[in-house]
Amino acid sequence: MQEPFVAEQRVLYGDTDAMGVAYYANYLKWFEIGRTELFRRVGSSYRELEERGCYLPVHEAYCRYLQSARYDDVIRIETQFSLVGRARLRFDYRLLLKGTDALLAEGYTVHVCTDSVGRPIKPPVYLRDLLSPLVSKG
Amino acid sequence: MQEPFVAEQRVLYGDTDAMGVAYYANYLKWFEIGRTELFRRVGSSYRELEERGCYLPVHEAYCRYLQSARYDDVIRIETQFSLVGRARLRFDYRLLLKGTDALLAEGYTVHVCTDSVGRPIKPPVYLRDLLSPLVSKG
Amino acid sequence: MQEPFVAEQRVLYGDTDAMGVAYYANYLKWFEIGRTELFRRVGSSYRELEERGCYLPVHEAYCRYLQSARYDDVIRIETQFSLVGRARLRFDYRLLLKGTDALLAEGYTVHVCTDSVGRPIKPPVYLRDLLSPLVSKG
Amino acid sequence: MQEPFVAEQRVLYGDTDAMGVAYYANYLKWFEIGRTELFRRVGSSYRELEERGCYLPVHEAYCRYLQSARYDDVIRIETQFSLVGRARLRFDYRLLLKGTDALLAEGYTVHVCTDSVGRPIKPPVYLRDLLSPLVSKG
Repeated sequence: MQEPFVAEQRVLYGDTDAMGVAYYANYLKWFEIGRTELFRRVGSSYRELEERGCYLPVHEAYCRYLQSARYDDVIRIETQFSLVGRARLRFDYRLLLKGTDALLAEGYTVHVCTDSVGRPIKPPVYLRDLLSPLVSKG
Repeated sequence: MQEPFVAEQRVLYGDTDAMGVAYYANYLKWFEIGRTELFRRVGSSYRELEERGCYLPVHEAYCRYLQSARYDDVIRIETQFSLVGRARLRFDYRLLLKGTDALLAEGYTVHVCTDSVGRPIKPPVYLRDLLSPLVSKG
Repeated sequence: MQEPFVAEQRVLYGDTDAMGVAYYANYLKWFEIGRTELFRRVGSSYRELEERGCYLPVHEAYCRYLQSARYDDVIRIETQFSLVGRARLRFDYRLLLKGTDALLAEGYTVHVCTDSVGRPIKPPVYLRDLLSPLVSKG
Repeated sequence: MQEPFVAEQRVLYGDTDAMGVAYYANYLKWFEIGRTELFRRVGSSYRELEERGCYLPVHEAYCRYLQSARYDDVIRIETQFSLVGRARLRFDYRLLLKGTDALLAEGYTVHVCTDSVGRPIKPPVYLRDLLSPLVSKG
């Protein structure tokens, strides 16, 4: 099993809601930070992918909320990559309270590859090469 | 099968992203609009629930993205309610492009009942009474 | 003085923060709703402007916060248009609690005209024609 | 003149809009990051202030937009503090593209002190002590 990629983000006032905790939609923004950092760590960036004509719109998103993230907490975002079939990319996320083992939330996103006008394409070779070190073998 | 509750919301510039379509986290805000309107249509409001000491934090959220919502589109939000076991509330959502049959996204949220400090409670009687007309019978 | 254009928006949970009131950045989203509706009422839309090659990025934004907007409040957004010199558009906003005279906030945005790649242009004739009924005469 | 406090934030996909650049309301979130870091650097935090019963709601916000922030850019946020009269706090912000002199935006926020239910109070002694090293002398 590959080691997860780690990013961090502090909870802003603007991320919280009247219940005093982070609003549930914002966890999907933290998922985005997780997968963005993953691309950066393998030596590329999602921006570079787009410049090469490959887009990765989200096809599915899921989150299970276990403990509340509060204002000013630092979230530790752990991200792992896998392929779904031949054409879909999946990222799994775990959000923890930094410096503890407290699991705040976990979830995943599934992405398809498209060209710049939204037509589905096969993952290009450079994307496969980029991510192949991350794909778990049996 | 009960009729779904319907709400509408126009896609703002601030809801879109650099891909020219609505950012994926914003669909969860539209889910919130859907369930909020459902409470209003049965004669109450989520604000009133909170004033009576009953909170409904999100425990799970899922969304499948089928077609992109674009700037200035009007989204038709259809919401249905069901109970999961004795203690969890589930809302199912369908987002359509208003005036068409185009399904943009569908998903659900699962909620638990808590008191004002976040301790799980059984759904209070007034909440059960409020929602019971909506629960599908076998 | 022209009558202001009126739009309405309900405060979502996702708009609030841990102080229990609407987060300050969200007032700028309500400003956007105000000016969007203004374009619609004069028979066009901001989307149509863009399709004709005219963009109106924000150059300045100001808001003064007077009373807090709370979860589930309905905000009444009043918008007025004016020209600044020959090339800049200004919108003035007043946000009120619907059904009352309570002024929650007021502010303005100033916009420049650009083409699709961001170069400043003079306001095109169709934009001037569209908005000219709104410009106050001395 | 005191040195500004510096924080950094990367532009997310979720921060951008269909114009391909950061949505104008999000600059106010970056302002929040700026003033939050300022409190941290002087040895406290805004969360701690609240725990001691002192809240700092925004009374005014202004932003002038000079160059667009794009997806994946790293924003350098410079923040300076000053007092307005005896009871209001002002923060001035400059947002630059990291590693360059390109000024993307500049602006300010003015804050009042309130207790936990929103009543105006004088800035407490511990807040004045905390911030006094930052106040420019003549």
